[in-house]
Amino acid sequence: MNIIEIIAKKRDKKELDKNEIEYFIKEYTNGNITDYQAAALVMAIYLNGMNDDEITNLTLAMAHSGEMLDLSIFGKNVVDKHSTGGVGDKVTLILAPIIATFGIPVAKMSGRGLGFTGGTIDKLESIPGYNTGISTNDFINNVKDIGISLIGQTLNLAPADKKLYALRDSISCTDSIPLIASSIMSKKIAAGANKIVLDVTCGSGAFMKKYEEAQKLANTMNRIGKLAGKETVCVMTNMEEPLGYAVGNNLEVIEAVKFLKGDMIQDVKEVVLELGAYMIKLAGLGDNIEENKERILEKIIDGEAYNKFLQLVENQGGDISYLEDTDKFEKSKYILEVKAEKEGYISSLNARKVGELSGAIGAGRVRKEDKIDETVGIVLAKKVADFVKVGEVLAYIHVNDERLGKYALNELQNTYQISKEKIEKTKTILGVIV
Amino acid sequence: MNIIEIIAKKRDKKELDKNEIEYFIKEYTNGNITDYQAAALVMAIYLNGMNDDEITNLTLAMAHSGEMLDLSIFGKNVVDKHSTGGVGDKVTLILAPIIATFGIPVAKMSGRGLGFTGGTIDKLESIPGYNTGISTNDFINNVKDIGISLIGQTLNLAPADKKLYALRDSISCTDSIPLIASSIMSKKIAAGANKIVLDVTCGSGAFMKKYEEAQKLANTMNRIGKLAGKETVCVMTNMEEPLGYAVGNNLEVIEAVKFLKGDMIQDVKEVVLELGAYMIKLAGLGDNIEENKERILEKIIDGEAYNKFLQLVENQGGDISYLEDTDKFEKSKYILEVKAEKEGYISSLNARKVGELSGAIGAGRVRKEDKIDETVGIVLAKKVADFVKVGEVLAYIHVNDERLGKYALNELQNTYQISKEKIEKTKTILGVIV
Repeated sequence: MNIIEIIAKKRDKKELDKNEIEYFIKEYTNGNITDYQAAALVMAIYLNGMNDDEITNLTLAMAHSGEMLDLSIFGKNVVDKHSTGGVGDKVTLILAPIIATFGIPVAKMSGRGLGFTGGTIDKLESIPGYNTGISTNDFINNVKDIGISLIGQTLNLAPADKKLYALRDSISCTDSIPLIASSIMSKKIAAGANKIVLDVTCGSGAFMKKYEEAQKLANTMNRIGKLAGKETVCVMTNMEEPLGYAVGNNLEVIEAVKFLKGDMIQDVKEVVLELGAYMIKLAGLGDNIEENKERILEKIIDGEAYNKFLQLVENQGGDISYLEDTDKFEKSKYILEVKAEKEGYISSLNARKVGELSGAIGAGRVRKEDKIDETVGIVLAKKVADFVKVGEVLAYIHVNDERLGKYALNELQNTYQISKEKIEKTKTILGVIV
Repeated sequence: MNIIEIIAKKRDKKELDKNEIEYFIKEYTNGNITDYQAAALVMAIYLNGMNDDEITNLTLAMAHSGEMLDLSIFGKNVVDKHSTGGVGDKVTLILAPIIATFGIPVAKMSGRGLGFTGGTIDKLESIPGYNTGISTNDFINNVKDIGISLIGQTLNLAPADKKLYALRDSISCTDSIPLIASSIMSKKIAAGANKIVLDVTCGSGAFMKKYEEAQKLANTMNRIGKLAGKETVCVMTNMEEPLGYAVGNNLEVIEAVKFLKGDMIQDVKEVVLELGAYMIKLAGLGDNIEENKERILEKIIDGEAYNKFLQLVENQGGDISYLEDTDKFEKSKYILEVKAEKEGYISSLNARKVGELSGAIGAGRVRKEDKIDETVGIVLAKKVADFVKVGEVLAYIHVNDERLGKYALNELQNTYQISKEKIEKTKTILGVIV
């Protein structure tokens, strides 16, 4: 077996077998297969595709390419959730403590933000004292003690995926369903999940712009989940405009805390309930989705979910006084108001553009090494279908650099499309694929 | 313009424009575009193809990626010939002096052998004293003085092609017509030719196994030759079995010298006459191909071509006493006889296999750094359609290592396919594409 023959096979539209895929991933991870050989194979996969068996074998090979988080002590129903990426997505912060109140173990390694999307770990770190870098032992013990722990990737999970992901980015091979599906699923499997609920985002702020493409991706992930013995449910959600109102680290934590205190923004609520209801179902604690949603709402209304969040934060060294009084969070130097220049209904608010602007004023990273500014970001006041009058505030820009702020203000103003005609509110949950 | 967008364009089957192709070649040559980005683009070209304009732009960009040999002092009809590769191909040794006798300037940089094919420069170097590494100045002066010089690639011609060629080999992207055509044509253009006669080989010992593929390649090269302003003619020749009888360095030189002295082997003669007749035509010295062939034969029969060869060799420091008496060439230690084990007609003699065996006993290189043994090789006694009796000699193996020789003997015996039925002699010239 050698890589030249493997490349030729995929080049000629033939199916790669398990051994060939495992050989490629193993030898690429350890450096015996060069980046240029991997690049040629990846382009051939991009253009000639892969069938479900191939994608499953690729997923499992990447999952096993590094350390694996062993969560088997928590039983067979370890449920994980994952989003394919979006703007303003603070769902994990809200959903993780909710799920833990059901006695479902939440042992979750999350990522940092990159590009125009934020990351759960960055958001958690804006709570003073919160330690995302505790040892794997402490992590497991925390879950045993209080049922929940959220940390960064302290293990070397799926290094083959990391290498391939970076490569794909530099050779125009990101938007390939076999490659996206195997990338997502390999990380989840390496992170110890055996039941997976996926938030498959769709729209301007997502990998997948069109519903049909997102649907294909979801179907692929469900099928390879099944082949890999990991039950998977995909909830399709709208990412045309940002989720919720806040985009930026402190700002999103504040929005999440308020949510857990009962101040539930509609679109965030729909996503939290839908994903949560399926997580409860996969954990074997109730098959009725609508009932599960009611049970989640109860956990919020009676304060149990919020208390679990306090417990999580305290247990990992965070200062919970910030959660009790969110006004304690450090503010940016300036808060600029973006005002409507004409009257009408908001017809479009490009999520990706909002994410990019938030990143540009300091909330995000271009490279992994970049530091983020936790205080900055954007808080929307109006979203799609809202009516505005001239001079009414559309959004607030929290910023520490006035020049950058003015740039963002101008750009954001142009990002809001305003129409004379009445616009229907877009649906948040576009479908569920089981 | 950036490479990621260029890759995406070809990935999506779009045409790359001149600027994009020039940018790619320039930045790849100077190392700003990585091998893995080039690999992804090459695979996309392999799978999605290129149109004539793209191939022409690629050819010209590669030709201009390094030094260019300027032969304009010799006028507008500098004719070059090139073979797409074969086994036992000593045509340049014979044809170059013939062409020079017509007053057509022969200023030719040739290559070394690699893999199962030999190289003209290695063959010339088996003549004691012959210097293939003279300066470009001396090279030009030799052509001015005596009308001919044959040297190795002392200039850095088409470095982009060298880099891409090595890359293609390691990513299963060798057999792509746009990539082969641009590779060949770029080298010829960089070497100063403005009229090109190509020997497009076809069969087991050639790049192109099937006539249809060779025809496609030829048509492509003719079209891009036209677009690049370099009139091109392709002579399609059979490379199912080796050309002539001798394979190996000293052995081929001896065969070439004997040819020039009038001992003309039929298949070599057909190739020499066909290519030569078109070279004379392209040089503007006669449009009648059959007449041109007659004129070439006269140059051989009256000794003029042989004398020109002597003059060439002497002028470059070679010892012509070896040509006057070819028995002076150093012999290998052993000459083993391959004998027929059954009676019948030879139905097949795989050229590639013969080339590989010749290489294996020391006549060729696996890597560029390898040294070759000039004395070894294979001399065929029988070729396709010949009748043999049991025990009759099929071929002679000239070898310095007895163990290797016995291995080659056994392999070569199996390479000769013998059939009870009468076999027709295969045609040597399969067609001419102008």
